[in-house]
Amino acid sequence: MSRRFPLSALIFLATVLPAPAQTVTDQYRATADKLIDAALADQEGYDRLAYLCYRIGNRLSGSPSLDRAIAWSVEQMKASGLSNVRVIPAKVPHWVRGAESGRILTPLDRPLHMLGLGMSVGTPAGGVTADAISVPDFDTLEKLGRDKVQGKIVVYDYAFHGYGSARNYRTNGASRAAALGAAAVLVRSATPLAMQTPHTGAMEYSAGLPQIPAAAISPEDAAMITRLIADGVPVKIHLEMGAHMLPDADSGDVIGEIPGKEHPEEVVVIGGHIDSWDVGQGAQDDGASIIACLQALAIIKKLGLEPRRTLRVAFWVNEENGGRGGDAYRAFVGDDLKDQVVALEMDGGAETPRGFGASVDAASIDLLRQVGKLLDRIGAGEISGGGGGEDIRPLAAAGVPAMSERAAGTHYFDWHHSEADTLDKVDPADFRKSVAALAVMGFVLADMPVRVSAAPVTTGGHGR
Amino acid sequence: MSRRFPLSALIFLATVLPAPAQTVTDQYRATADKLIDAALADQEGYDRLAYLCYRIGNRLSGSPSLDRAIAWSVEQMKASGLSNVRVIPAKVPHWVRGAESGRILTPLDRPLHMLGLGMSVGTPAGGVTADAISVPDFDTLEKLGRDKVQGKIVVYDYAFHGYGSARNYRTNGASRAAALGAAAVLVRSATPLAMQTPHTGAMEYSAGLPQIPAAAISPEDAAMITRLIADGVPVKIHLEMGAHMLPDADSGDVIGEIPGKEHPEEVVVIGGHIDSWDVGQGAQDDGASIIACLQALAIIKKLGLEPRRTLRVAFWVNEENGGRGGDAYRAFVGDDLKDQVVALEMDGGAETPRGFGASVDAASIDLLRQVGKLLDRIGAGEISGGGGGEDIRPLAAAGVPAMSERAAGTHYFDWHHSEADTLDKVDPADFRKSVAALAVMGFVLADMPVRVSAAPVTTGGHGR
Repeated sequence: MSRRFPLSALIFLATVLPAPAQTVTDQYRATADKLIDAALADQEGYDRLAYLCYRIGNRLSGSPSLDRAIAWSVEQMKASGLSNVRVIPAKVPHWVRGAESGRILTPLDRPLHMLGLGMSVGTPAGGVTADAISVPDFDTLEKLGRDKVQGKIVVYDYAFHGYGSARNYRTNGASRAAALGAAAVLVRSATPLAMQTPHTGAMEYSAGLPQIPAAAISPEDAAMITRLIADGVPVKIHLEMGAHMLPDADSGDVIGEIPGKEHPEEVVVIGGHIDSWDVGQGAQDDGASIIACLQALAIIKKLGLEPRRTLRVAFWVNEENGGRGGDAYRAFVGDDLKDQVVALEMDGGAETPRGFGASVDAASIDLLRQVGKLLDRIGAGEISGGGGGEDIRPLAAAGVPAMSERAAGTHYFDWHHSEADTLDKVDPADFRKSVAALAVMGFVLADMPVRVSAAPVTTGGHGR
Repeated sequence: MSRRFPLSALIFLATVLPAPAQTVTDQYRATADKLIDAALADQEGYDRLAYLCYRIGNRLSGSPSLDRAIAWSVEQMKASGLSNVRVIPAKVPHWVRGAESGRILTPLDRPLHMLGLGMSVGTPAGGVTADAISVPDFDTLEKLGRDKVQGKIVVYDYAFHGYGSARNYRTNGASRAAALGAAAVLVRSATPLAMQTPHTGAMEYSAGLPQIPAAAISPEDAAMITRLIADGVPVKIHLEMGAHMLPDADSGDVIGEIPGKEHPEEVVVIGGHIDSWDVGQGAQDDGASIIACLQALAIIKKLGLEPRRTLRVAFWVNEENGGRGGDAYRAFVGDDLKDQVVALEMDGGAETPRGFGASVDAASIDLLRQVGKLLDRIGAGEISGGGGGEDIRPLAAAGVPAMSERAAGTHYFDWHHSEADTLDKVDPADFRKSVAALAVMGFVLADMPVRVSAAPVTTGGHGR
């Protein structure tokens, strides 16, 4: 409370001011409760997720299983009665892992727990065999200089303090080391949990530098290599990677709609990405999200609700290693963006939903908090600033209000981009709550009289 | 408080009774504090553990690395000034994993996250390919009967409620299924954590039944197979295992001593097992334990302390798949057991130490609680009933008081018998506390005027 207004003055104002007009909370309470009840009783959504995970599997851009997922998604959207179901074509990079393996040769022959990074080149035939050096950061690498780095396998064994900084080594580590003549890089996996599990993810090459192979290794192997070298014990590593690029592949975003009954041209889009890495099942990243978004629309349809504006679900493609689906969607909606009411992406996993982030102005945050109150009964009503996502970044950059669904994220990075991202990680009760939260938020955004307004552009979102 | 003695009577008694004689707690307080201070400042112990894990590696019975570990252990005991350092010979089973792999062939071709169980036979050349059936327990299997089980790969996807019951499926699952004509068994790993990590462990064949291959699979794969079959989707699996037995190998227990200055013939032995499975580094199971026991003696030696009785450290061999080291030790000490004061095994991991379990009589528990008070400053003084361990089972069965060091065990079964049982899992501060607890308990047991007495025999201990 501000010191400028004594309590007595506030009590006076509260007494004499007229009662506020009906809030969004009041207006949508009954509808929201119906949606939440339906979502919490829904079995179809989790069954769809199980099908995606267990019958289609992971969905790397360019893979046959992504093609199957796209075809199946079209069917599912149609089966739920969505309109204008279609695939927005996109050419996607077609990176192929190929056979890969690694061994620590000295001081003791043992398997290296590795997983090539997405978009990496392969090794030359016969692999790379070299002594390792280990660095905790780029500064240390650069202080070592070309004399110490040339011909070596550089191990980035940084201290893990969250995904953002860890991703920097994964993304840029190869070129930073290649600039000093390194033969290959191994990057500690971007995860807080050490279970000998390597976690992949996209890397990038800087122009004008040699392209060297890059792989993730388990936290355990990174720690061992670091300690051995610190103890003066040379560590020799053999790495073989058959990774390579094929020509871009035909693919696309899948969308479907509940057309607006008053303003069909105005669009609220909610979605996630249909592609995944080629390990695990892409359950938390991002299968549960796309199916939760689809199921939100499915439940709205089942209840016969018709929002004023169009509510669209989007399964964007190629989030993990190219962003071509986001670009294709941006092109699809065209240059006149006034009818793009809000774009909401869910890409932080489907653990217990907490609420939504929104890159919108202060008045819109207040408005969203009124919607959030409808979700307090399932604990998913918290509204905070700074929403977004990789796939809606092009829209957000052009001024479209961007939002993201936010979940607890307790174990998300234990599983992320690894063999362990499987259906069992998605708790059915949490999943249903996400469906409920998305149904309520999606419906109200598409139906309420006022629209949210974008805040000055931020980049937001946790990204790939 | 018993209702039979009113509080006033107790206060009266406390007032008029003579002060008790000096307790064990009082008697050893100064010595214990010195030992604890030394242990908490010790670096040598963890460095030894790092050497064992990173330079010698895992130590399956019959393997060259176990031979190296035994030779190195003899050196380390001698380097710490222990007396009578020797290897007690034992012939150990020599099981070899060989190459192994598995795939789920239908409904979707994908890797099976498997790890053969110790002592399993291999598959015939070319492997086993069969449809899977999944059962949650033996009752369900037996109700299915030979018609449904014959020729199938049986998946035991039991609900994990702790290691004890889980181990039953691992140990006995193959023969129970073979009795009904199964081709092979896959057992959900005995772990609470699902990270696509299979956990191995010993299995056994019942006499007179066909010996079929047995492997652990990840909790994720078990859950997927179960759900697919429940959904009516046939799951076909291909399994190849090169596992086989070689002739028994020469090996042995490593022991070393601080001879008793008054009663050298009386022996307190503390130890763990030197062997491990052939995955990971055998860090928590049981490398940290043997090194903590060694370091306890090393610190007693460094402080120049001489207990009245002999304090012996034992690195028993073949705990994991045969128990031959425990048998050899039992034979080594001979039939006259009156001088075997107590046998203490640490085989529950080296997470935060909490105290000790003891299969001793009530008066001895009281006595041990006096020792425990010396460890309260590091939180390791809790004394409870029922101590033991696989390697000291033969001694305990013959009436020798048996004890075990007890640790928190928060994550022990996350790592147990898997690739993830590596040095980084052993927290240096916790490890030092274990050294302190073992040094104090070991020294006082070997020095205090009275001896503990065994309780009626129990089996105790968490086992393999």
